[in-house]
Amino acid sequence: MQADIGLVGLAVMGENLVMNMESKGFSVAVYNRTLQRVRDFVGGRAAGKNIIGANSLEELVSALKPPRRVMLMVKAGKPVDDFIDKLVPLLDVGDIIIDGGNSNYHDTMRRVSFVETKGLLYIGVGVSGGEEGALKGPSMMPGGSFEAWEHVKPIFQTICAHVDGSPCCEWVGAGGAGHFVKMVHNGIEYGDMQLICEAYSIMKNILRMGAYEISGIFDGWNKGELNSYLIEITRDILKYEDENGLPLIDSILDTAEQKGTGKWTVDTALDEGEPLTLIGEAVFARCLSAMKDTRLKGSTLFEPIVSDMEIDKGEFINHLEKALYAAKIVSYAQGYALMRAVAKKYGWRLNYGEIALMWRGGCIIRSAFLGKIKDAFDADPDLENLLFAPYFVKKINTAQTGLRTVCSTAITKGVSIPALSAAASYFDGLRSATLPANLLQAQRDYFGAHTYERADRLRGEYFHTDWTGRGGATASTTYTA
Amino acid sequence: MQADIGLVGLAVMGENLVMNMESKGFSVAVYNRTLQRVRDFVGGRAAGKNIIGANSLEELVSALKPPRRVMLMVKAGKPVDDFIDKLVPLLDVGDIIIDGGNSNYHDTMRRVSFVETKGLLYIGVGVSGGEEGALKGPSMMPGGSFEAWEHVKPIFQTICAHVDGSPCCEWVGAGGAGHFVKMVHNGIEYGDMQLICEAYSIMKNILRMGAYEISGIFDGWNKGELNSYLIEITRDILKYEDENGLPLIDSILDTAEQKGTGKWTVDTALDEGEPLTLIGEAVFARCLSAMKDTRLKGSTLFEPIVSDMEIDKGEFINHLEKALYAAKIVSYAQGYALMRAVAKKYGWRLNYGEIALMWRGGCIIRSAFLGKIKDAFDADPDLENLLFAPYFVKKINTAQTGLRTVCSTAITKGVSIPALSAAASYFDGLRSATLPANLLQAQRDYFGAHTYERADRLRGEYFHTDWTGRGGATASTTYTA
Repeated sequence: MQADIGLVGLAVMGENLVMNMESKGFSVAVYNRTLQRVRDFVGGRAAGKNIIGANSLEELVSALKPPRRVMLMVKAGKPVDDFIDKLVPLLDVGDIIIDGGNSNYHDTMRRVSFVETKGLLYIGVGVSGGEEGALKGPSMMPGGSFEAWEHVKPIFQTICAHVDGSPCCEWVGAGGAGHFVKMVHNGIEYGDMQLICEAYSIMKNILRMGAYEISGIFDGWNKGELNSYLIEITRDILKYEDENGLPLIDSILDTAEQKGTGKWTVDTALDEGEPLTLIGEAVFARCLSAMKDTRLKGSTLFEPIVSDMEIDKGEFINHLEKALYAAKIVSYAQGYALMRAVAKKYGWRLNYGEIALMWRGGCIIRSAFLGKIKDAFDADPDLENLLFAPYFVKKINTAQTGLRTVCSTAITKGVSIPALSAAASYFDGLRSATLPANLLQAQRDYFGAHTYERADRLRGEYFHTDWTGRGGATASTTYTA
Repeated sequence: MQADIGLVGLAVMGENLVMNMESKGFSVAVYNRTLQRVRDFVGGRAAGKNIIGANSLEELVSALKPPRRVMLMVKAGKPVDDFIDKLVPLLDVGDIIIDGGNSNYHDTMRRVSFVETKGLLYIGVGVSGGEEGALKGPSMMPGGSFEAWEHVKPIFQTICAHVDGSPCCEWVGAGGAGHFVKMVHNGIEYGDMQLICEAYSIMKNILRMGAYEISGIFDGWNKGELNSYLIEITRDILKYEDENGLPLIDSILDTAEQKGTGKWTVDTALDEGEPLTLIGEAVFARCLSAMKDTRLKGSTLFEPIVSDMEIDKGEFINHLEKALYAAKIVSYAQGYALMRAVAKKYGWRLNYGEIALMWRGGCIIRSAFLGKIKDAFDADPDLENLLFAPYFVKKINTAQTGLRTVCSTAITKGVSIPALSAAASYFDGLRSATLPANLLQAQRDYFGAHTYERADRLRGEYFHTDWTGRGGATASTTYTA
């Protein structure tokens, strides 16, 4: 018997993907660098199933049907390159290497080119859904060698999540497009998580609510427009009791990490000049959370906030629901704008409606909301900004008072809301025909002779003013502030 | 006669540095790739002065006293490498190449190593002050080959700005330390400029004040704690009349650029995991300003903000002054924290008090405020966070009500304040013993088996909860959200 696909790397995601594939009728050969892991898996969860353990990459490759499909589920970075180098000599023309890890899309672009020069095909596929998604049906975002797609599609579109009968897996584009879209997904996930944390913090610190009561609020929200996986698990987390019958959440340390795809998303936004402020703040919020000792010191130094502002709890919670919804629209609008910019750069013809559908089920950010995004892009594939879609214009018109009320209350009361306030400032910037950058341009021309354009003249004509009467007429070319 | 120093690149900064050096008694040989520029300069501004025009790099080098000092004032990037490649064969052991442009500090690190392998010395020096600073005395931040410092010091410490008799130029450190500190300076400059723009926008859009009236407010502020070059030029810009007797500022287009050192500063902060939120928002604010057409469309789509909030103008302007001051403290605290992190990484022993002194005069961000920062680091060179210095604790205690009032009012009234609100959220995060990242860690453990630490246990012990009763006990190693 020869297996349909080979999988390298038996950490939780790899193992669960194998179990998922096997349960849908595919036979899988598996290999792991530490062989004990292969033995444990084959003798344990995989016992009696259509899963073949391999003791070497050679054994793995020889166990596969042609064209051979070898999927890597190993740590992003050097391990992927190492396995590619080892696999290339073992494979034949037309065989396919698939990277299902969280690789940087620049690496995937490079690897697609490299592997194709060897006569092989390469797919970088973003896989989202965590351990349970991997097992039951993840969201999958494949890109790379298009020729390989027909050989991988039957497996991927079977094992992935489905929404209303449609698979949450569709071809994304050439090169690193799959991993790029997965990266933006993860960035958006950073934003969603931070927004939920801020809502939790506001209920805890301003409304003085306990974990179980807050869980109840998330339960209610999950029945409305905010319905989503992250809201659902937040509800469950907040009501989880530890062995003493107390909320476990209150014993968990408040320090998060941020190395990875969230940071890459912001790096990309900076490279492209796309204002991805909410996710940027979410990444930095994790950095600040990690500085626990510094914050402990900070908590002793400053005067407490004095505010006699009165709050109607029920009304405020309604505002908070709207605030969360409005900020979420902003965050997705920023993420989609980034995708547009990068797709243009690399000539990828991304289908934004299909991307929303891929995220609609299986993955961590799955939500009812993504169905509305799909509708918006289906109606207008060239939509410049998600906030400009008629549906979302209406929604944010209704939700903005909530966002403004919550932001101003939290800032008054001293609760940190980097992502919520970033949402408000982006929205207010986006709807401003005029921003104060005219002053900024004047400053740059004043101190650096950078020149400026005029609002009453055509674009592309540059002016310099000798503001002080002492400067020269030479325009600056070396100083760029 | 042989010249004290050679300078390559006769754009405005280069020309003005030459005029500055010559006026202080140094003879300068000059070269520019476009030779017409050399002829124009030597026959024009430089006529009758101790300035020698060179028609080639060979001629330039042969006109210099040993050890030869050749300063590049060319565009950052490839032009610097090109000139280094051309200069190396022309120079002798112990000669010095100086890069006075806005080079990326990673490039400078590489160039110091490369040039030293050729037996030569290399200095990367950040020069700030714009065209006028270059002419009259800039702030200068040199780093690289320490052996070269004694040969450059007499020139640099003479031509630079001085404050109370001290030169605004001191040795920063090895490798790219000089350009790194200059980069952070520019990042802080981005932040300062954005904060001033937000204050201007608030007065214009909330208080409905005209340019001349706002100029008067900046004039008042410039006499107080906010006294600084940028506040001063803002005052002058806002009262500048165009040929029709109207404020020129109202005709300048509100679109700024952001490619360069501001972006690099945020890139570095992301790499180091340092929350540099205010400068991050300032960079992204420039990106959003550049999207003029998108904003024009956005300005037509959404419902106007309705708010019956009443504002006492005089009181509010006092709050605004405090808000600006508080946000400025936060921005510098973030910038200094970034310097600490990077200095630790590369083993640079940065003297933070001296850095404040270098910025105290000559450069774009020069201000009275930097004197207070110098005092704070002189009193405690290991100060963990600028906000923890007793002076600034007192200041922000007084100023925080202003910051909170201004932020909540602007968000209520629909004025975009990305930098001001980032300041509030960072301050409130820094003074929070507990942030909501406990929920974030629980979410990550729920969907990705990422494990978490507990608040009631020692650091370094990791826990995983099977939240659903369905997950496995395997910890994730491939999925990093």
